[in-house]
Amino acid sequence: MDRRSFIKRAGVLGVGATAGSLAAPAVAQGNITWRMVTTWPKNFPGLGVGAQRLADRITTASGGRLTVQVYSAGELVPPLQSLDAVIDGTAEMSHGAAYYWQNKSTALSFFTGVPYGMTSRELTAWVRYMGGQEIWDEIYDQFGVQGFLSGDTGTQAGGWFKNELTGVDSVKGLRFRTPGLGGRVWEKLGVAVTNMAAGEIFQALQSGTLDAAEFVGPYNDLALGFYQVAKNYYFPSFVEPGLATELVVDKAKYQALPDDLQALVKDIAQAEYDQVASDFYANDPRALQTLINEHGVNVLQFPEEILKAGADAAKEIMTELRESDDPLVKKTAESFIESLNIVRARSKTTDGAFVNARESYFDI
Amino acid sequence: MDRRSFIKRAGVLGVGATAGSLAAPAVAQGNITWRMVTTWPKNFPGLGVGAQRLADRITTASGGRLTVQVYSAGELVPPLQSLDAVIDGTAEMSHGAAYYWQNKSTALSFFTGVPYGMTSRELTAWVRYMGGQEIWDEIYDQFGVQGFLSGDTGTQAGGWFKNELTGVDSVKGLRFRTPGLGGRVWEKLGVAVTNMAAGEIFQALQSGTLDAAEFVGPYNDLALGFYQVAKNYYFPSFVEPGLATELVVDKAKYQALPDDLQALVKDIAQAEYDQVASDFYANDPRALQTLINEHGVNVLQFPEEILKAGADAAKEIMTELRESDDPLVKKTAESFIESLNIVRARSKTTDGAFVNARESYFDI
Repeated sequence: MDRRSFIKRAGVLGVGATAGSLAAPAVAQGNITWRMVTTWPKNFPGLGVGAQRLADRITTASGGRLTVQVYSAGELVPPLQSLDAVIDGTAEMSHGAAYYWQNKSTALSFFTGVPYGMTSRELTAWVRYMGGQEIWDEIYDQFGVQGFLSGDTGTQAGGWFKNELTGVDSVKGLRFRTPGLGGRVWEKLGVAVTNMAAGEIFQALQSGTLDAAEFVGPYNDLALGFYQVAKNYYFPSFVEPGLATELVVDKAKYQALPDDLQALVKDIAQAEYDQVASDFYANDPRALQTLINEHGVNVLQFPEEILKAGADAAKEIMTELRESDDPLVKKTAESFIESLNIVRARSKTTDGAFVNARESYFDI
Repeated sequence: MDRRSFIKRAGVLGVGATAGSLAAPAVAQGNITWRMVTTWPKNFPGLGVGAQRLADRITTASGGRLTVQVYSAGELVPPLQSLDAVIDGTAEMSHGAAYYWQNKSTALSFFTGVPYGMTSRELTAWVRYMGGQEIWDEIYDQFGVQGFLSGDTGTQAGGWFKNELTGVDSVKGLRFRTPGLGGRVWEKLGVAVTNMAAGEIFQALQSGTLDAAEFVGPYNDLALGFYQVAKNYYFPSFVEPGLATELVVDKAKYQALPDDLQALVKDIAQAEYDQVASDFYANDPRALQTLINEHGVNVLQFPEEILKAGADAAKEIMTELRESDDPLVKKTAESFIESLNIVRARSKTTDGAFVNARESYFDI
């Protein structure tokens, strides 16, 4: 441990770090309390709940040696300043999504999800076994933070539309709320793309400011009530085939933790990746049943023409990123595309082929 | 804590449990060493490696307070006596697959994977959010053990066949190595099903004792060299759409652990579920490329007629289990089928629909 990190460590441990104080069986050093800011509203299904649970699991499994205090969106800093809060020391941890920080590096999009990119299982294969984490570390090292995958929504819903879609012509000029690279894909299809915060969408759909909106999927969308003002719910989201959340920690403070606590934070972030994904896979289809059976929502698949035009637009964007002048963006895109072309073979011939066979032949 | 568990606990903690002894920062009580037996050969890709890593992660994240010593298949007990070893106290933990213990309860099949059943993501949705874990606990309570999901292979490969398959007629009478409920499905299609240990399959294929064999998927099958004696590799395995591994612990000893260590064991088993799945999703397609490019393997999809006949046979078996006289088998099958019929909607309309669209339109 060098002098700088020793000083950091002393600061982290702070009050009560007398080695002999034994308040509970697991307490051998002073307890540490860390602040976790999040980009999610309190109790937001799947994601806000996941941030709180992640914090609680660290507190429990560390026997209180590392206690994590959660601040929901806006409680300590505005949601989209969560990463900055860790960088400037206002908080030690942030729970959000890497693509919110595209203004720092476009490469961060790949660690959340990109149009026609990876599903959740493909993403973890890339991050954990195909070099993704190492590149992510290189990007975040510039800001003195460390990122861990902490959850995933799985493939999202495509969006709520007031009118039925017949093809590419039918989306031209539509005012559609869809952010990020996904928004850029829809723009290429002639859509008038806008972004707005979750809490503003319903009102904008109702007043006619929006013709369409996509947010997450049935589990979250049901709670926001979009079905009351738009009845056509299109699947799948080809612009968000998986959406991973992240846990970000102050890297120096993280590395100053004892080895067992470092391991524990990493392990629990990974456990939560699975927990959040399981939550969405269980509760999205339940919410979809409610939307269909109780609220008369039309569940529809996007017309093939839109899926194809979306793929062409996504390819343009991904190719642009692969040819970026920013060496880290270029490196990330190259690694992602190369890995995608390996892992997609399994999804097609094995998992995807099974799901197709089950849909064709198995009814119980 | 009642008297019995107090005595158990005292026994577990054993020597060195003096509260004041502080050998290392995280050590506040005496260290515990647990034996983990496994059903896997040492360093077996994905699964044996996963068992060892799970043990090491517990040791590390507990700061050595709970040290787990791994015994591979046969080192302490024969592989298929791993669960019994935990029941009789020879070991505290077992790493294997629940369907190996079908002789104790057929219901255990559902916690590994059943023909035309759940994919890995669907399985965790059921186990973690739709009542699966509670039923599993009820089954294992009879034996004084506790099960946790600890890994998943994802959808497996269908098998290696010496001859190309044209339809159901072409499999009649084939001598095919495929165990468990999957074997029963193939039997209904007229196949002469046999089971044998991993290490015997290659020789049996070579000598002509077998016409075909299925084991796991490319990652494991490449290592066993089946491509040298059978060139036709069929996908997908409709009898093993996901195969979950389990961590089993002695329940009384587990409950006697301090709360933080109990949480840590559970958290790390869940982290490993994700880690093992990521390993297979990254390394199966890499191994498949090697099989195709270096060993001239023909990768083929099962004929539709076989997929359909397999679905009919699987339905007969699942229906039989749902109507079982054994109340726990009946309860498990009912819960599984009800949950499957909810979660499959997401796989079809969202994740599966995305993968299909990507295959149709996105090439980069």
